[in-house]
Amino acid sequence: MRIGMLTSGGDAPGLNAVIRGAVLTGTTVHTHEFVGFKDGWKGLVENDTLPLSRHEVKGISKQGGTILGTSRTNPFEGRGGVDRINEVMAENGLDALIAIGGEGTLAAAKRLTDAGVKIVGVPKTVDNDLDATDYTFGFDTAVGIATEAMDRLRTTGDAHNRCMVAEVMGRHVGWIALHSGMAAGAHAILIPEQKTTLDQVAEWVQSAYDRGRAPLVVVAEGFTLPEDDEPHSERGLDAFGRPRLGGIGERIAPLIEERTGIETRATTLGHIQRGGTPSAFDRVLATRLGMASISAVNEQHWGRMVALRGTEIVHVPFAEALGKLKTVPQSRYDEAALLFG
Amino acid sequence: MRIGMLTSGGDAPGLNAVIRGAVLTGTTVHTHEFVGFKDGWKGLVENDTLPLSRHEVKGISKQGGTILGTSRTNPFEGRGGVDRINEVMAENGLDALIAIGGEGTLAAAKRLTDAGVKIVGVPKTVDNDLDATDYTFGFDTAVGIATEAMDRLRTTGDAHNRCMVAEVMGRHVGWIALHSGMAAGAHAILIPEQKTTLDQVAEWVQSAYDRGRAPLVVVAEGFTLPEDDEPHSERGLDAFGRPRLGGIGERIAPLIEERTGIETRATTLGHIQRGGTPSAFDRVLATRLGMASISAVNEQHWGRMVALRGTEIVHVPFAEALGKLKTVPQSRYDEAALLFG
Amino acid sequence: MRIGMLTSGGDAPGLNAVIRGAVLTGTTVHTHEFVGFKDGWKGLVENDTLPLSRHEVKGISKQGGTILGTSRTNPFEGRGGVDRINEVMAENGLDALIAIGGEGTLAAAKRLTDAGVKIVGVPKTVDNDLDATDYTFGFDTAVGIATEAMDRLRTTGDAHNRCMVAEVMGRHVGWIALHSGMAAGAHAILIPEQKTTLDQVAEWVQSAYDRGRAPLVVVAEGFTLPEDDEPHSERGLDAFGRPRLGGIGERIAPLIEERTGIETRATTLGHIQRGGTPSAFDRVLATRLGMASISAVNEQHWGRMVALRGTEIVHVPFAEALGKLKTVPQSRYDEAALLFG
Amino acid sequence: MRIGMLTSGGDAPGLNAVIRGAVLTGTTVHTHEFVGFKDGWKGLVENDTLPLSRHEVKGISKQGGTILGTSRTNPFEGRGGVDRINEVMAENGLDALIAIGGEGTLAAAKRLTDAGVKIVGVPKTVDNDLDATDYTFGFDTAVGIATEAMDRLRTTGDAHNRCMVAEVMGRHVGWIALHSGMAAGAHAILIPEQKTTLDQVAEWVQSAYDRGRAPLVVVAEGFTLPEDDEPHSERGLDAFGRPRLGGIGERIAPLIEERTGIETRATTLGHIQRGGTPSAFDRVLATRLGMASISAVNEQHWGRMVALRGTEIVHVPFAEALGKLKTVPQSRYDEAALLFG
Repeated sequence: MRIGMLTSGGDAPGLNAVIRGAVLTGTTVHTHEFVGFKDGWKGLVENDTLPLSRHEVKGISKQGGTILGTSRTNPFEGRGGVDRINEVMAENGLDALIAIGGEGTLAAAKRLTDAGVKIVGVPKTVDNDLDATDYTFGFDTAVGIATEAMDRLRTTGDAHNRCMVAEVMGRHVGWIALHSGMAAGAHAILIPEQKTTLDQVAEWVQSAYDRGRAPLVVVAEGFTLPEDDEPHSERGLDAFGRPRLGGIGERIAPLIEERTGIETRATTLGHIQRGGTPSAFDRVLATRLGMASISAVNEQHWGRMVALRGTEIVHVPFAEALGKLKTVPQSRYDEAALLFG
Repeated sequence: MRIGMLTSGGDAPGLNAVIRGAVLTGTTVHTHEFVGFKDGWKGLVENDTLPLSRHEVKGISKQGGTILGTSRTNPFEGRGGVDRINEVMAENGLDALIAIGGEGTLAAAKRLTDAGVKIVGVPKTVDNDLDATDYTFGFDTAVGIATEAMDRLRTTGDAHNRCMVAEVMGRHVGWIALHSGMAAGAHAILIPEQKTTLDQVAEWVQSAYDRGRAPLVVVAEGFTLPEDDEPHSERGLDAFGRPRLGGIGERIAPLIEERTGIETRATTLGHIQRGGTPSAFDRVLATRLGMASISAVNEQHWGRMVALRGTEIVHVPFAEALGKLKTVPQSRYDEAALLFG
Repeated sequence: MRIGMLTSGGDAPGLNAVIRGAVLTGTTVHTHEFVGFKDGWKGLVENDTLPLSRHEVKGISKQGGTILGTSRTNPFEGRGGVDRINEVMAENGLDALIAIGGEGTLAAAKRLTDAGVKIVGVPKTVDNDLDATDYTFGFDTAVGIATEAMDRLRTTGDAHNRCMVAEVMGRHVGWIALHSGMAAGAHAILIPEQKTTLDQVAEWVQSAYDRGRAPLVVVAEGFTLPEDDEPHSERGLDAFGRPRLGGIGERIAPLIEERTGIETRATTLGHIQRGGTPSAFDRVLATRLGMASISAVNEQHWGRMVALRGTEIVHVPFAEALGKLKTVPQSRYDEAALLFG
Repeated sequence: MRIGMLTSGGDAPGLNAVIRGAVLTGTTVHTHEFVGFKDGWKGLVENDTLPLSRHEVKGISKQGGTILGTSRTNPFEGRGGVDRINEVMAENGLDALIAIGGEGTLAAAKRLTDAGVKIVGVPKTVDNDLDATDYTFGFDTAVGIATEAMDRLRTTGDAHNRCMVAEVMGRHVGWIALHSGMAAGAHAILIPEQKTTLDQVAEWVQSAYDRGRAPLVVVAEGFTLPEDDEPHSERGLDAFGRPRLGGIGERIAPLIEERTGIETRATTLGHIQRGGTPSAFDRVLATRLGMASISAVNEQHWGRMVALRGTEIVHVPFAEALGKLKTVPQSRYDEAALLFG
């Protein structure tokens, strides 16, 4: 078989391990050939291809990024659409497509599957917000980087008796904040799923401070304070109509300082959480997912994505994977919150 | 309640996070008090205690080792036994005991439970060889350290066109070898569960070499070559009756070199795999297990240990956890082996 | 002798190694006793002391922060002054004082020396901006953290064909930017010492992009664009009179994107650069400086600080160390700039 | 000019940064062209070349190993010799040669210079044993890896009340042992330059143990005990005439245990010390040395090598650099030894 492959959406550590796992399995165990599409759906729509043989995947599993490039292009916009995609697949003699991406990519893949395109998916989200899989690759690396950063912040907090605020990724869900916060021993974890008032945050901070600790607050980028604590007008544009710089971490730090009188500093970890060498956990997971994507192709499991359940890799229909954002359940938040303050 | 706590057996990254998770939950959510026993069962038998309050567990989840100390003492030997343990528990006014340890510890805990002692267990094995839990804490850290070491070895192998052999932990099972080998892109993984001949190893090594790669061989310390490839007489004592220095890694390297003609060097990672700062994954897992051990105590789930299943922490009877070494299943080995050579 | 010790100013990895080096040398080689002052000059002025024996410094050289605490208090303000300091030293029976701190601390120490107080200094500045020493501890750790972060940013830049901007520490000098930028292979390094126009930055960025690279721009926090490229009014307060959030990194990224059309993202590394485990280099340097501070005390080298010259530790009069900010010399910048674009 | 380049001798982190620094400077600042020789002098003698343009050095400064390959071939043996080297240089139209290597490489380079070949050298030794330069690249990385490994060993030592022995590189000199031991807070550092008896080692170990510490002993691979403590017959071959496996670390551990009664475990760090991503320090140093090698070529400084003095890069005649092994001076050892026991 000839198989097309693309990576789409935001960068995630482990993408290259998926690609390598699939290509090695496909070419050495089976006799498949591969064609890479450059920069996600964009390359597919524009028929912009890259060679993808055993040679290209040599030693890449420990590299961050993706050798195929990625973008946030929607395959149904512009020149795209089912006909164009069928055309490009035909031109390249492709029997199947492996799409590696997040919610948006998988939704597009489902729509293409419904139109008869033979696609298998590999879920990718650093945020770990896909419901059909226990974990997604990239998440463990992100949590590890965030935790190490917080370990560093704490020593400075201790030296200065300061409250340190760390803003981590998580626009819609708080998984990275929950895990890194628990790993680093945070005194407050603020996530989009949980409404938390500034009073409550201040209480946790004060309580830790009163016990002689330098308080550590972890906040997911998607967390918002109640309107009473931070009016919406303060969040968006500045008085010149320019987008205000600085995220929730930088905005909440002075509010905590004001409320508690404790000197407070914010750090926004940003893009360092999603780049660089993947953790061993993510390399193993991503390699197995890549290998399993070939099984799915071999078994003609079109319209399914590979997923981790416990310690096993399974094939799951796209429909099951979509539409349900995997949020942090109340029980997991409550568990973590027992250690706050 | 007053709860005794001990850590027993080999060191594992995450022990302190378990202790902290249990003590924080027990003292701040509930009103339990804790008594630590020094150096495992030894401290219990000898009534050698350590204070164990919120103060002692401050900031320890990122520290390797165990603040309680550990040893391999058997609680039924010497002065030990059920009566002595009941006596010490009574002297300390203890209502329950939390024992953190591996197969041996849990077997002893089961025997004590059967004799009426109120015990809850927390499984600990860097080797990940306990059947009743998806993963044990310490394993992820060990795999991460081994993988990073192999990443380093590879660049030297590449520079010199050498075969590099890395010996990792795993006396009875090959989990660390399997995961670190897969993460590092090894060309051969040798584990106790799989009989592999020197011919086969040489073939994998040669095949990688012929493709221009510097072959990487990962071998678990408990792997043995067939008698024909390395007579037993060469493994144990030297001609002076002294134990021979060097493990399987150092022994197999010259055999590979002899067979293939490719310069081969061995590195034994040894104790660095089980010490130091735990990974974020292990800190979260260990913290959750420690917290769950308090739930088990609260629910009087004597004779059970806490365990990870998927993403949930559950309580499992000791009997279920014991006697079945969790070996690497054939399917997982075959999966990894697809990428060899 | 009885020796007082304090750490003052911003946190720097290695402070604890200095303290340990001094206390171990003082107590085990000689028969000195130590008194720690809490939170820098504040503790000295307020006679707020901490015990400081061999026990307290056990295993601390690998810990970030300072066990003595630190603050930016000026010893001549408020209740402070020479008389008060002499009084507190007398009350504690002190024969000498070791002050560990930056430019401000050493200036205060010089003033006290001139007034007859027996002081030895240990220079501390993560920014490496002290003229009398080849390197200061903390700098190597900061450069290492920044470099590792940039390694991560680059993979994301590559995956997305983006320009990545990394803002690093360096209010007045560009040493951290210079070294981390050179280590990470940056395509532009912007430092306070060098006036660089937006046109020039855009040219470097475009040149790297045109060669298929994802441009990496490293900017020291103290860098400013010429007035024409970013009017001063845009830098300071927003229209509500609140300090604008976001530093030069966040401000320059949209300007680069606007000028080149290349998608550009900024990350501000912030406090993670100055906390956490010090590098081995910094631990060795800090330990040696701490030990040498005791030699200086023994030799009654009052009014001198310890410093690194080549591979040797020397004693340098405060006067020599002060007043001259060690900026990045033109030759070093030119050397780095050869690799830009 | 056309410049040949080769890397020779053992792997060292930073080799690729040297190559990149030289090639980028040579091709973008000047108009030089480069030819790489494969596997050191071997490639030169056999005229086995690799292309070496800006393209080949893209992003390599953070990679361990050397893209040119290396070997320990002597250019004067076999087909080699001055005539052959002149012949190959002529065939490739070369005006100069840059040789990156250790003592042996530089000695060969000197001999070639004396015979009229136009050579510039870049010193390389992980062991830091070259007299004419303050530090060599690779050393800082090795010390960092060894220190991190010891940090890990210590937690296991503490948990088990064990003495841990770490064997580090250093066949002839103890620089890595000295620096990593000081950074890790070792209780004994054993180096080739210093005769130390087993009694002395045991005393240091016992003293640390008696103070409640888990003793850490760092030993350079080239250290030997006095004949009385370990007869030479025990060091070399076993009774079958095979080389005995295991180095000084594995041999001294049971001797320490026997002498003190303290359980003792050895770890040999081995090849992980010389591979993998170079530290930021080494990348900067190596990049600067590579750049400076082009200045030396431009200035026709044949027969000189580039070297670090303080913070400056200088050109030093080969003769000055050779013949004098840079050993650990007594003063530096004594300084470190003040913290033992």
